[in-house]
Amino acid sequence: MAESTYQTRRERVLALLQAQQTDAAAFSHLPNIRYLTGFSGSNAIVVLSERESVLYTDPRYELQAAEETDCKLRVVRGPLWPEVTKAARRRRFKSLGLETELLAQAEYARIGEQLANGAQLGDVSGLVERLRAVKDAGEIAAIRRSMEVCGRAYLQTMNKLRVGMSETGIAAELEYRMRRLGAERPAFETIVAAGPRSALPHAQPTGSRVQANQLVLVDMGASLDGYASDMTRMSHTGRPNAQTKRLYAAVLEAQLAALDAVRPGVKCSSIDGIARKTLQRRGLAEFFVHSTGHGLGLEIHETPRIGRRAKDKLEQNMVITIEPGAYIPGQGGVRIEDTVLVTARGAEVLTAVPKGLLVL
Amino acid sequence: MAESTYQTRRERVLALLQAQQTDAAAFSHLPNIRYLTGFSGSNAIVVLSERESVLYTDPRYELQAAEETDCKLRVVRGPLWPEVTKAARRRRFKSLGLETELLAQAEYARIGEQLANGAQLGDVSGLVERLRAVKDAGEIAAIRRSMEVCGRAYLQTMNKLRVGMSETGIAAELEYRMRRLGAERPAFETIVAAGPRSALPHAQPTGSRVQANQLVLVDMGASLDGYASDMTRMSHTGRPNAQTKRLYAAVLEAQLAALDAVRPGVKCSSIDGIARKTLQRRGLAEFFVHSTGHGLGLEIHETPRIGRRAKDKLEQNMVITIEPGAYIPGQGGVRIEDTVLVTARGAEVLTAVPKGLLVL
Repeated sequence: MAESTYQTRRERVLALLQAQQTDAAAFSHLPNIRYLTGFSGSNAIVVLSERESVLYTDPRYELQAAEETDCKLRVVRGPLWPEVTKAARRRRFKSLGLETELLAQAEYARIGEQLANGAQLGDVSGLVERLRAVKDAGEIAAIRRSMEVCGRAYLQTMNKLRVGMSETGIAAELEYRMRRLGAERPAFETIVAAGPRSALPHAQPTGSRVQANQLVLVDMGASLDGYASDMTRMSHTGRPNAQTKRLYAAVLEAQLAALDAVRPGVKCSSIDGIARKTLQRRGLAEFFVHSTGHGLGLEIHETPRIGRRAKDKLEQNMVITIEPGAYIPGQGGVRIEDTVLVTARGAEVLTAVPKGLLVL
Repeated sequence: MAESTYQTRRERVLALLQAQQTDAAAFSHLPNIRYLTGFSGSNAIVVLSERESVLYTDPRYELQAAEETDCKLRVVRGPLWPEVTKAARRRRFKSLGLETELLAQAEYARIGEQLANGAQLGDVSGLVERLRAVKDAGEIAAIRRSMEVCGRAYLQTMNKLRVGMSETGIAAELEYRMRRLGAERPAFETIVAAGPRSALPHAQPTGSRVQANQLVLVDMGASLDGYASDMTRMSHTGRPNAQTKRLYAAVLEAQLAALDAVRPGVKCSSIDGIARKTLQRRGLAEFFVHSTGHGLGLEIHETPRIGRRAKDKLEQNMVITIEPGAYIPGQGGVRIEDTVLVTARGAEVLTAVPKGLLVL
């Protein structure tokens, strides 16, 4: 990413801060810091004000921060917040925005004490996240690459999948192949769940082995250049019976209906409603126990949420997942998930893996 | 882990709460929840009171929670905290302890509003973490298994390491082998840093390839049955020169001196001081830019910290790392790290990988 990209982003944040009469803001959420500065380490605070952008980090990251970011650097031994509040006093900020939805209450209280009669504390929760929801060309390209690596790793692994392999063994293979294809890491813990375990929507893989005539759910994503991808595909060892086929067809119908509805200006809650109603018509509403999707980018779950209570509308160049599912306790579950770019003409599915139930 | 283990832990917490005149406490930090209940999902709150232990989670985790825990279960669609505060009002708690060092300020403020004139909010930060610092026999066994898997994966991978392999390729191999040997996942992102990049103490692996006559730093850990291990080992492609040998010898001397000092009752800060002074005598103090170690268990960084400002003393059955390092910018760095059990007689090193500079 060009340095000017980060500067442009920081300028957009500053404009929003001015609009809410805030002098300065301190961001401590790492994905926001990466978005605003390029810094990818695990300990930092970035303070933006009209005058300057300052990245605070510890000595472990001195060299890395100097390489990655064009901000002014302050390397601090020990806790970072006291240095931030000292600088805020020195600069005589009248107001300092904090990410109160993420910053711990005890830290917030200490910051308030350290500022004493200085800056008033404000709330900038979600401000950067809202900017991040709409992706620029570089981000979309990164998500495409991430999705490509994820899909290829899935197809390579499925070619080798056999009855008798363990869920953890398959997950290891999927993650290894993503890495070999260029991913920095999995975007989240790869889910492999076979047979009745596929009815646990967020099952961690176990040592249990795939048996004949079982559904195998794989939910996986790569992180590449910091950007996530996310997909869920189903396979079946042997020919599925009529009941399994019906379950699969119903979830696929819901997924396609939701995809069809994706376009700029549509309410996220109505996308969720379409998936939910389709499953309801098949008598499966009660088995769809999560929401239909979520934005993704520097984090695997970002603004917007595609759920019942979601208030956002889709905008062009948002990247979201569409992933309805139905989980029958004790029997098995089906989820089908694509990563999708919202274009002016509707959904562009970035997941290039066939969507039929793969029979192994 | 037997269910009674969790119950015993919860009883210890309740006794501590009573001692500080707190009726009930709500824990939202996931490793604490796993420690107290066995639940390993990603969204939960557990409320402990004299009367009952209640685990709140969402419908995705209904089956998993029922399998994993003996607590009373409350499955909630949507945000969990409003249900916790409703129950606190119904039960007429006079006081409710919260993890204020971890709970977001905005959530804390909402909880306060929802409780209205009900329970006073208290602070239970670090309470469970202090219990977790001293491991029981089952936990020590899990960490031993985790360390064993980590060490074997390292040795297997080093047998194959060749000049021309990329840092990310080596990291992928290390993580794949940990998984194949039974790990659920890496305990943290595996660090592989070659040549001058070894001077970045928390380098993420890149696509850059290992060249001849380079130091290769590998910092890795497994997570197995939820428990972490952690080790750092150094290798060198070709025979190291005198300068590299001196650097390695100095760090090894510091690591052995710190290990020698480990025993119950010793201040953590004095262990750190011993490592630091050893490096100082070799003129390397300024290049040791982090602390000497940390506890580990359900998390990769736990109580106690082994650093300059640490106030804890070592206790029997703590498990900690000892990991001094020296990082010469532009040239290279060396870190040597073991996972160590604090026994009555001193440090038992759990890392069963030779500690010489491995020449490849």
